[in-house]
Amino acid sequence: MTTDGQTRRFGGLTLEHDREWDYELDRIADAVEERDVETIGLQFPQGLKRQAPGVADDITDYVDRDVTALISGQPCYGACDVDMQLARQTDLFVHFGHTAMSESEGIIYVPLYSNVDPSPIIDEALAEFPDELDELGLVTTAQHVHRLEEMREQIEAAGYTVHTRKGAERLSREGQVLGCNYASADLPVDQLLYVGGGQFHPVGLAMEHPDKDVVIADPVNNLVTDATAEEFIKQRYGAVHRAMDAETWGVVYCTKIGQGRFERAQEIVANNDDAYLITTDEVTPDRLRSFGLDAYVNTGCPRVTTDDGAQFPAPLLTPGEYEIAVGNKPLDSLSFDTFHGTW
Amino acid sequence: MTTDGQTRRFGGLTLEHDREWDYELDRIADAVEERDVETIGLQFPQGLKRQAPGVADDITDYVDRDVTALISGQPCYGACDVDMQLARQTDLFVHFGHTAMSESEGIIYVPLYSNVDPSPIIDEALAEFPDELDELGLVTTAQHVHRLEEMREQIEAAGYTVHTRKGAERLSREGQVLGCNYASADLPVDQLLYVGGGQFHPVGLAMEHPDKDVVIADPVNNLVTDATAEEFIKQRYGAVHRAMDAETWGVVYCTKIGQGRFERAQEIVANNDDAYLITTDEVTPDRLRSFGLDAYVNTGCPRVTTDDGAQFPAPLLTPGEYEIAVGNKPLDSLSFDTFHGTW
Repeated sequence: MTTDGQTRRFGGLTLEHDREWDYELDRIADAVEERDVETIGLQFPQGLKRQAPGVADDITDYVDRDVTALISGQPCYGACDVDMQLARQTDLFVHFGHTAMSESEGIIYVPLYSNVDPSPIIDEALAEFPDELDELGLVTTAQHVHRLEEMREQIEAAGYTVHTRKGAERLSREGQVLGCNYASADLPVDQLLYVGGGQFHPVGLAMEHPDKDVVIADPVNNLVTDATAEEFIKQRYGAVHRAMDAETWGVVYCTKIGQGRFERAQEIVANNDDAYLITTDEVTPDRLRSFGLDAYVNTGCPRVTTDDGAQFPAPLLTPGEYEIAVGNKPLDSLSFDTFHGTW
Repeated sequence: MTTDGQTRRFGGLTLEHDREWDYELDRIADAVEERDVETIGLQFPQGLKRQAPGVADDITDYVDRDVTALISGQPCYGACDVDMQLARQTDLFVHFGHTAMSESEGIIYVPLYSNVDPSPIIDEALAEFPDELDELGLVTTAQHVHRLEEMREQIEAAGYTVHTRKGAERLSREGQVLGCNYASADLPVDQLLYVGGGQFHPVGLAMEHPDKDVVIADPVNNLVTDATAEEFIKQRYGAVHRAMDAETWGVVYCTKIGQGRFERAQEIVANNDDAYLITTDEVTPDRLRSFGLDAYVNTGCPRVTTDDGAQFPAPLLTPGEYEIAVGNKPLDSLSFDTFHGTW
């Protein structure tokens, strides 16, 4: 292995923390050597796919062997969504951008940490809390979780008691949330501080924890806002109501490795003669439209159901919402569809 | 097994030839018994997915065991496109609507034959041929291939010599064409008669055999027309020209079982430092757009390239067209990208 990787700036991923990236490149290069790798599979989330060719060049330039890089063209939205076909086809497989949900032989996870300093936006968020607030729960995403201890120290220095937890097997790091699991926010507090970019994670947080106040400190867009799930919750009730008239049901079993709840899907179908089990890797409006059924239950990613549900040709419900629609459970049992376990 | 299937009209597929369908249901039921089947996978082409719930009911009602039917929600456009993940997950797998491209243990192929009588439209087509024509080549699709001998007799009775052949391993039946293989039309004639619905197959036929006249006798839409590929061929030249400026290339290896040409893809990448190997099961504009490369080579289904190419964000070429674009072959070598072999 060459050693100039320690100083060279690699073109593949233009993150500022080159040392982190160089370290990871070494980790990949070591595995290539150790395992006599001839083919290496590379998988990136949607927003980073454009970096894939540069990363492929970095790796093939850096290692001392002839390796063929295969880049996954499958959509990818999380660590639940490992391209297992490519992983099986290649000698080594590298999944970028997410922390490991479950460690597997032959798969390297390369989380990509943000280089943005969250401390200014955390200060801004703290300034907006009422004076009487003295404790809060702190959660963040995979992109910022490497700075959790810095965040905690900053907030404690401002006089607060900070609560965090790891929460669930599915979450690899203390304080981390996923779009489908907010167990790290099961904390004895009324106030949660979410540090991270975008609306995707805090909306789920607000759905899962409707009894808590959620403040978003977004270091990427430099904004402090309140998270609310009100609009989503209204949509969920609307979808459940529309599905109450359904005579035929499609029950989707998602075949992505970290999204499969086959037993739940099979149980629904076994108890409803007008329900049909449909298997697919991507749960999209087009794929379900082909079947022309009255309503669908998605046992795969709950965020497809809650965030994209309105785009589907018929009501798309979570398993819990299905139980309400067919009268097995009361309307007020409606809650966020958390994913447990790994695979 | 119950025997009333012989007389009962099943609701699943509303084809008129119930005897054919009943026979197939018996074939499925026998396999369920013989193999102690608990889970059965069902796969339908796009246009028949709406029938899937009815067919699932037919099967589960008809067999004497508790079986769970799993319906594939993956897109499916041919026998090249077997949902292998579902096939592996189920005890028995039934692929509807296509003839077998390759026989596999545990997979039953149920071709669905059209009940439309093609003889009136064949008579109409023959009436339009010039008097001096005395021989022609006859080809048809999987939906009509069960009537090939009837067609031959009708055309011979009208005074023509009729040529047919099986052509290729990929084609399971004499006289059959696929969208990616027209070897059954490699016949010592200038005139081809294609009996079948739609434009999809005859356009490919005209691209593959530009030296022959192709007349379409369409018994479904009751039309006689000439097939021409002129517009498609112009588009192909256009795409090749636009790709000549490309600096970076994505080379798509399609992971569908009957569409994989990995060695061809790998060969291109090995000889071009600016080409990157991308693996995917569906070759769609969205999936390629994520990578932002200048041009793409599709080693998967050639009909995605020729028929849908204009919808892609950058030029999408067949492997042969790529060789022209990079200067390895002359422009006049442009030809239809035939798929050989099975898997």
